[in-house]
Amino acid sequence: MKQFLSVKDVSNINALVNEALFHKAHPLKNSSLGKDIKLGLIFFNPSLRTRVSSQIAASNLGIASFVINAGSDSWQIEWVDGALMNSDKVEHIKDAAGVLGSYFDVIGVRTFPTLKDRESDYSEFYLHQLAKYSKKPIISLESATLHPLQSLADIITIKEHSSSFKHKPKIVLTWAPHIKALPQCVSNSFAQWVNAWSEAEFVITHPKGYELDEQYTKGTMIEYNQEKALENADFIYVKNWSSYNDYGKILDVKENWLLNLDKLKATNNAKVMHCLPVRRNLELGDDILDSDHSIVQQQANNRVYAAQAVLADIISNL
Amino acid sequence: MKQFLSVKDVSNINALVNEALFHKAHPLKNSSLGKDIKLGLIFFNPSLRTRVSSQIAASNLGIASFVINAGSDSWQIEWVDGALMNSDKVEHIKDAAGVLGSYFDVIGVRTFPTLKDRESDYSEFYLHQLAKYSKKPIISLESATLHPLQSLADIITIKEHSSSFKHKPKIVLTWAPHIKALPQCVSNSFAQWVNAWSEAEFVITHPKGYELDEQYTKGTMIEYNQEKALENADFIYVKNWSSYNDYGKILDVKENWLLNLDKLKATNNAKVMHCLPVRRNLELGDDILDSDHSIVQQQANNRVYAAQAVLADIISNL
Amino acid sequence: MKQFLSVKDVSNINALVNEALFHKAHPLKNSSLGKDIKLGLIFFNPSLRTRVSSQIAASNLGIASFVINAGSDSWQIEWVDGALMNSDKVEHIKDAAGVLGSYFDVIGVRTFPTLKDRESDYSEFYLHQLAKYSKKPIISLESATLHPLQSLADIITIKEHSSSFKHKPKIVLTWAPHIKALPQCVSNSFAQWVNAWSEAEFVITHPKGYELDEQYTKGTMIEYNQEKALENADFIYVKNWSSYNDYGKILDVKENWLLNLDKLKATNNAKVMHCLPVRRNLELGDDILDSDHSIVQQQANNRVYAAQAVLADIISNL
Repeated sequence: MKQFLSVKDVSNINALVNEALFHKAHPLKNSSLGKDIKLGLIFFNPSLRTRVSSQIAASNLGIASFVINAGSDSWQIEWVDGALMNSDKVEHIKDAAGVLGSYFDVIGVRTFPTLKDRESDYSEFYLHQLAKYSKKPIISLESATLHPLQSLADIITIKEHSSSFKHKPKIVLTWAPHIKALPQCVSNSFAQWVNAWSEAEFVITHPKGYELDEQYTKGTMIEYNQEKALENADFIYVKNWSSYNDYGKILDVKENWLLNLDKLKATNNAKVMHCLPVRRNLELGDDILDSDHSIVQQQANNRVYAAQAVLADIISNL
Repeated sequence: MKQFLSVKDVSNINALVNEALFHKAHPLKNSSLGKDIKLGLIFFNPSLRTRVSSQIAASNLGIASFVINAGSDSWQIEWVDGALMNSDKVEHIKDAAGVLGSYFDVIGVRTFPTLKDRESDYSEFYLHQLAKYSKKPIISLESATLHPLQSLADIITIKEHSSSFKHKPKIVLTWAPHIKALPQCVSNSFAQWVNAWSEAEFVITHPKGYELDEQYTKGTMIEYNQEKALENADFIYVKNWSSYNDYGKILDVKENWLLNLDKLKATNNAKVMHCLPVRRNLELGDDILDSDHSIVQQQANNRVYAAQAVLADIISNL
Repeated sequence: MKQFLSVKDVSNINALVNEALFHKAHPLKNSSLGKDIKLGLIFFNPSLRTRVSSQIAASNLGIASFVINAGSDSWQIEWVDGALMNSDKVEHIKDAAGVLGSYFDVIGVRTFPTLKDRESDYSEFYLHQLAKYSKKPIISLESATLHPLQSLADIITIKEHSSSFKHKPKIVLTWAPHIKALPQCVSNSFAQWVNAWSEAEFVITHPKGYELDEQYTKGTMIEYNQEKALENADFIYVKNWSSYNDYGKILDVKENWLLNLDKLKATNNAKVMHCLPVRRNLELGDDILDSDHSIVQQQANNRVYAAQAVLADIISNL
């Protein structure tokens, strides 16, 4: 891989998943692979799970990683070319990215959506400006519209549980309630990966108005009836997102979309997934999260090996 | 050791002190002991001395350590089981601790007291929830009511100075003035360790109303007259704490409890201790801190070797 | 070197520059030189480029580095000897520096000017208190009035471009517009280094009222006409600073001091330098920054090797 911004950068998903499972079985087997490599981890948005799993993955490979909390360090970046910088922005992305590119061999970056300007968010302007001016391989640590490291960890987890299946696993992505307007990135990315993987039966269920961007869901069955969607499901991915069409809005939803043990009865003893953090009893109940249905901890743990597989692949191609 | 939450986790204090003194003499002798180990250092309260001494101790043992500033990263944790998370808390300790436990082999954590709800503080609820759900060895980096790494460093320092004594050292813990309501943890813990060590004559002196929790002071002589308490002291531990009985309050104290050189005259040329940070000329004067009586720098330095001994012991038992 | 607070600590500038160029050519050649060394990096002011370049330099030499963001960690330091600490300051520099000195073998520190009290700023009080009480070698990571690591990187960059010159390079330091009152430290330090180096023809140009402290500019030609100053320049260092005489003030300047391609015509195809971050089109235009005249990225990259040369020299003298 030359970069890791979405599943489009991955030539063979199963090979990458297998590489990750190898690292999971032997985390320190390649502990000198990255001994000359410097990885910058730039967070324009706070992060915990992503930061720590990336740092651990780098450490396992012998890569020296350096964290930059651009937000809390108040590094006000001007992203627009040609701007007259006479207000609060102190450095242009051209110069900042140039410096980062000269310090680091690989750059991981987390950017964020405005949830106000859809066109700008979906252009992934920040990510592309950074890639353009740093001239180094970029790994998305979650961007405005996608979260490929999460999706890779998700596929790894599904594969661990379905390897002995005699049928194609049925995966259902279901919308869940929340009190805040959340990005669509985890759901977009999951849909994009499952579709690219093409080894599952895939259904998305959500209230009307919560349709995701068609570039990720084209060809996927959309079922507005959650109960019906869940029938015979092997895996249920639970996630809230705000509206794509009425961009960034929380719509009025009357039905109860909170998953519970009762709704699982019609499934194939389904495993329940969530990317965490999860608001218990709002997005997903204790009844499920504390049961054997939940594989959310396994997903979080697989974040380390997803990152390790991606880093190993990228530095092998430097 | 399976964990390090208090002196109760230590089977042999002198052996642990000797281990620390070995690390002090040969800090890098075991620099590959922890080469496969990942240590998470979680701070729900800001820290400097504790963070850096823990990181150095880990580094000396070849342990990879990862710092999480839960406060400044605004990681709002829900600690109560069964809660409906529909306000500002974004992640439940069950899930957060599960992830931390899957990322790290050992977890150091600093929690804090409310100084308002004594029952909750003294239950060490946060610490126990983290231990329960992470399922990994926990090292207290200071908790609501105890600070065992500080106490171990204190005992190390006392031992360094009293090894040639022909008598049991007399140790006096004296209350000192302050302008803010401070936790009781350093004093509780020091009392608990000195009593468990049982190789000293131990006296606690403080104004009436500042009695510490009896579970730590039972059997210890409490002397309300500071002057009398200091007679023939070999070591004087100076520390402010807020009231335990009138919980978290600063009481009206009329006498002058500030230690000075004059008060030291009745002592056995006593060494003066403080855990730092110290407010000069409020808690303890320049006259003493800048004199040969002060061993506060040595205490701070021994924090590294206290942490190193505890880490080495815990990872040897993984 | 026993410390690195200014060019005065450097016995041979060219030897140090050559050492840096060696590290640039072979960054990991000395990767075990610092294996037993602990470096504390203390920031009383936020930093990004300096922090990361110092961490990378340390990493290249096998030095374990530990960052302390004194500002954001709200470590309120009392700097004045003898103070009664009964307000917001929680630790005295005597004690804090003592602890830092006992934890670290070498200490890098960034302090800052008030831009209000010139006498205090130019006394470098903070830097000297830290050096005095830590008793360890101090590396300035930018102080109130100087920025020697930047200047060393600047000289390295000039040397890379002028090694084939048959004449002494002409270097012009020119003031540039800005909307905020900036420190004089980069300009002071650059002047001090170029003068100490004495291998260039050196001219400083700025509006009247922006004279720098004579201790750094003594013997240097000051030319108030920018156009005239730039004639036949080989290198132009662009930098804003606030007034030294009317301390910390932004003066009313009527002429246009913004450099542009037209002004470069009278130069010897000059290379243009800036320490970054630069406010584009305010301090320096896109026309120059995006042209082959600009060597600002090279300067930033050389910050790593400047730090590496200084660290290697200091730890070789421990």
